[in-house]
Amino acid sequence: MKKTTLLINCLDKKGIIATVTNFILAKKGNTVYIEQHVDRELGEFFMRLECEFDQDEEKLALFKESFNKVVADNYNMHWEMYDAEKKPKMALFVSKYDHCLYDILGRHASGELKVKIPVIISNHLDLKPIADSFKIPFKHIPVNKNNKEQAEAEQLALLKEHKVDFIVLARYMQILSENFVNQFPNKIINIHHSFLPAFPGAKPYHSAYERGVKIIGATSHYVTSDLDEGPIIEQEIVRVSHIHNVQDFILKGRDLEKIVLSRAIKHHVERKVLVYNNKTVIFS
Amino acid sequence: MKKTTLLINCLDKKGIIATVTNFILAKKGNTVYIEQHVDRELGEFFMRLECEFDQDEEKLALFKESFNKVVADNYNMHWEMYDAEKKPKMALFVSKYDHCLYDILGRHASGELKVKIPVIISNHLDLKPIADSFKIPFKHIPVNKNNKEQAEAEQLALLKEHKVDFIVLARYMQILSENFVNQFPNKIINIHHSFLPAFPGAKPYHSAYERGVKIIGATSHYVTSDLDEGPIIEQEIVRVSHIHNVQDFILKGRDLEKIVLSRAIKHHVERKVLVYNNKTVIFS
Amino acid sequence: MKKTTLLINCLDKKGIIATVTNFILAKKGNTVYIEQHVDRELGEFFMRLECEFDQDEEKLALFKESFNKVVADNYNMHWEMYDAEKKPKMALFVSKYDHCLYDILGRHASGELKVKIPVIISNHLDLKPIADSFKIPFKHIPVNKNNKEQAEAEQLALLKEHKVDFIVLARYMQILSENFVNQFPNKIINIHHSFLPAFPGAKPYHSAYERGVKIIGATSHYVTSDLDEGPIIEQEIVRVSHIHNVQDFILKGRDLEKIVLSRAIKHHVERKVLVYNNKTVIFS
Amino acid sequence: MKKTTLLINCLDKKGIIATVTNFILAKKGNTVYIEQHVDRELGEFFMRLECEFDQDEEKLALFKESFNKVVADNYNMHWEMYDAEKKPKMALFVSKYDHCLYDILGRHASGELKVKIPVIISNHLDLKPIADSFKIPFKHIPVNKNNKEQAEAEQLALLKEHKVDFIVLARYMQILSENFVNQFPNKIINIHHSFLPAFPGAKPYHSAYERGVKIIGATSHYVTSDLDEGPIIEQEIVRVSHIHNVQDFILKGRDLEKIVLSRAIKHHVERKVLVYNNKTVIFS
Repeated sequence: MKKTTLLINCLDKKGIIATVTNFILAKKGNTVYIEQHVDRELGEFFMRLECEFDQDEEKLALFKESFNKVVADNYNMHWEMYDAEKKPKMALFVSKYDHCLYDILGRHASGELKVKIPVIISNHLDLKPIADSFKIPFKHIPVNKNNKEQAEAEQLALLKEHKVDFIVLARYMQILSENFVNQFPNKIINIHHSFLPAFPGAKPYHSAYERGVKIIGATSHYVTSDLDEGPIIEQEIVRVSHIHNVQDFILKGRDLEKIVLSRAIKHHVERKVLVYNNKTVIFS
Repeated sequence: MKKTTLLINCLDKKGIIATVTNFILAKKGNTVYIEQHVDRELGEFFMRLECEFDQDEEKLALFKESFNKVVADNYNMHWEMYDAEKKPKMALFVSKYDHCLYDILGRHASGELKVKIPVIISNHLDLKPIADSFKIPFKHIPVNKNNKEQAEAEQLALLKEHKVDFIVLARYMQILSENFVNQFPNKIINIHHSFLPAFPGAKPYHSAYERGVKIIGATSHYVTSDLDEGPIIEQEIVRVSHIHNVQDFILKGRDLEKIVLSRAIKHHVERKVLVYNNKTVIFS
Repeated sequence: MKKTTLLINCLDKKGIIATVTNFILAKKGNTVYIEQHVDRELGEFFMRLECEFDQDEEKLALFKESFNKVVADNYNMHWEMYDAEKKPKMALFVSKYDHCLYDILGRHASGELKVKIPVIISNHLDLKPIADSFKIPFKHIPVNKNNKEQAEAEQLALLKEHKVDFIVLARYMQILSENFVNQFPNKIINIHHSFLPAFPGAKPYHSAYERGVKIIGATSHYVTSDLDEGPIIEQEIVRVSHIHNVQDFILKGRDLEKIVLSRAIKHHVERKVLVYNNKTVIFS
Repeated sequence: MKKTTLLINCLDKKGIIATVTNFILAKKGNTVYIEQHVDRELGEFFMRLECEFDQDEEKLALFKESFNKVVADNYNMHWEMYDAEKKPKMALFVSKYDHCLYDILGRHASGELKVKIPVIISNHLDLKPIADSFKIPFKHIPVNKNNKEQAEAEQLALLKEHKVDFIVLARYMQILSENFVNQFPNKIINIHHSFLPAFPGAKPYHSAYERGVKIIGATSHYVTSDLDEGPIIEQEIVRVSHIHNVQDFILKGRDLEKIVLSRAIKHHVERKVLVYNNKTVIFS
């Protein structure tokens, strides 16, 4: 039995659920789990289906073709189908902070994260020993004012070579160009160390301290060409008080960053995220 | 258009979703929203559907009969169908604590709680002025060791008279008899002032203080004949520390109790709760 | 025994604690509880003392005079002394939203809030029945574009007449003038329905929905002439998801607003707040 | 300047704060920070002072002697004095779960945890590679029904050899004997994977799932001879729902365990914990 996941969105109309589940039944598939959301304001319909097929790759290709003709075209659907048992390939981008890297590699090593990590890319050499100890290839691509374009070309070549499905910026301290970002739409996950939209940009913990907030946060989001403005995937917070200084904020924030980033990665890997209107639908 | 909510559970089998949505389509209904859960361990399937019918009461009765024959009997389904726009009738039981009563009546007055409150029943007279100020009928039925059976008979008669659909014990300090509870299975909501299963029984804040916990909680659950052992609907917590004494626990706990109880009432009223195996499925 | 609370701040120097506690001992006072904070960055010292005196009002006046000469002047202290058993007088400003008003009056009625409420002031008549049911005087002072100055003059006269110590804006929908605010420095508490500094200004729930955040919040702060920029006293949050629309945000937010505002009031009433550099020290 | 931390508790009496701060001043010390708690119910006084001395070791020894005679004996104080800059020695006990070990060693490597880790002791060999990669000595001491006494003797010898100050059980799956525990009173920190006192003993995630709770937790506590009954240091929780199975509970719980354990270690290392009456005072 082949397990697949379907992600669908289209304008909301009568009968979509019945039409889709019937089509799957007709193709001898079994709808195991269905989740759905309707944005009433926009009139948009979202659905995630887990289904099982007693079929080989070839027949699945025919299914897709047929689904397009019989179902998707009628509803003007945007849809994707994933092999639920195939681990996606995730590239990690890091700079000098190690806490998110340790966290992700620890979760990967323990089997918690169902991904392959073909490569870790960094603009610094500092974290190479960690990559080595987890036996993940580490590529050092320095970035400075003058070589940015070339550095990104190298990065893109590496990503292509390894057939990378999505990218995680685990406290990577360089801003990606619009050209780079556009090649991975809704496939680059960043962790920002504040409760967005509060404190975008650099040094958010300093700004939070300056403002005297009583709660700090972290936000994981897809990267778009608008810095810190992409669709939010997950957020989490922790309480602070006047007794905490900026360094305390940073330490407390690290724990948030790890958790918020790893949750976002899991949502993405399990195909539970649909992006629409610069927001995310996160299926449960 | 008549809006209805269907709650279904049965043993998990192939094709349930398609069968049900097709049947609704065939009866000229429109499935607007569907949510589903499968307990893999028990092999049990749960579903909540919101659907719209262009039908009058009479035809809906025929739908129900037909659904039983054509669908439900085949799958050995347990199912219920609710008119989504009909406000259920909720009776409140209180004693002397006023915070939950104020909270519920305030939410009701502002339109947040979609229920009718035909009667408030109490074993004390203390809260009558609050009921009066919100213009809800208040019935004083004293309870003591000797008159418990008779008092419950009076209560049951009142509930019957007002065609009460479900009961909320808003810090009602009497234990209901098994006979009483059995007449409202999964229809009596209690708020317990601890994070169950920690600190069941009386004086949980005192016990929590004694034990030196760093977090206290509140739990809303359906009442069963096993005290504080019924299916949990909702829980919430708040941090405490060594600086807080029992009185502080009680004050902080009040805010929890109000929130946890009102969330449970909303889940129940919106038909989002399915009870199975002494646990709850809470649809989103 | 007369219980008093001292709030002190000054530049951090050696020996402050010993000097103050000795002075109190010499005046036959007993330091019952002491709490302290040093802002290392600014080199500022903050202290809150609870002490007991076996003295009458007259002797306490002498104590104050002497404390100024012997202690405070040497350290260039900013200090205040409060009678711990005297309930401060709190004025409530409201408009049309009732949830914070219900909450505050309910807590007051149950004895949870140790304040006197001599008057509720509103620019609308909608909430008068609530004030009436709690037997608190309600003054209707309409505000519009043309009469703002005069309306504030009336409000100020009322506050003076009732010897009001501090003001709580319980979802009062008018912006106070700089002149008004300056007469109650750090004595006007507002509740803003967002997690400041995210979403200042009007319609924060709409903005939060638009941005697709996964957590919403509420913030209580002292009012300054910079709108929504005053010192933050307390914040709290609640999770939201794609299934919640603006109306859901508003409903969830109400519970936050009530809790965050009531916590701020308690901190203020118990003299646990020191404002410095547009931030708050909140003693525990 | 020598920084030291004093922890004091005794029956609450008049003048303790002034007496202690005066004594320090007389000995040319400077009280930098003071925090205090009084348990009204028990009449017990707790204080933590940070002070600086311009003194060498020899003079500090005299200070201690003098403090005993002049201050502590009068108040029948229990007190301890720590060199604030001396890193305590922490031994880690582990079995097969790696998440807490990764987390602690990562925090240690980044400088977040101010401890020395002279040895990791395990009853299994599984985690040796992790210890190796962080270059911490790893000792394998197998434990079974028959050799427990001897194994503990080996452990105790190792702890003595390394002059270990306190022990962290980072998901160590053996129960320590009363004899062992008594040699490290309030110096063995355990992480229990439930929200104690709910679900003590083995398999708490299974029990939590069975009970249908909506929130799970983790608890760090000092080990006493009563299993899972020792003084609680820290607790944290995370929400769960019907969609999560036991495996999900375990995964979510891991994140809790890491955070709750590391917070407890920090509190202990910074001398912020006073144990009294099987409860903890945690200074801020």
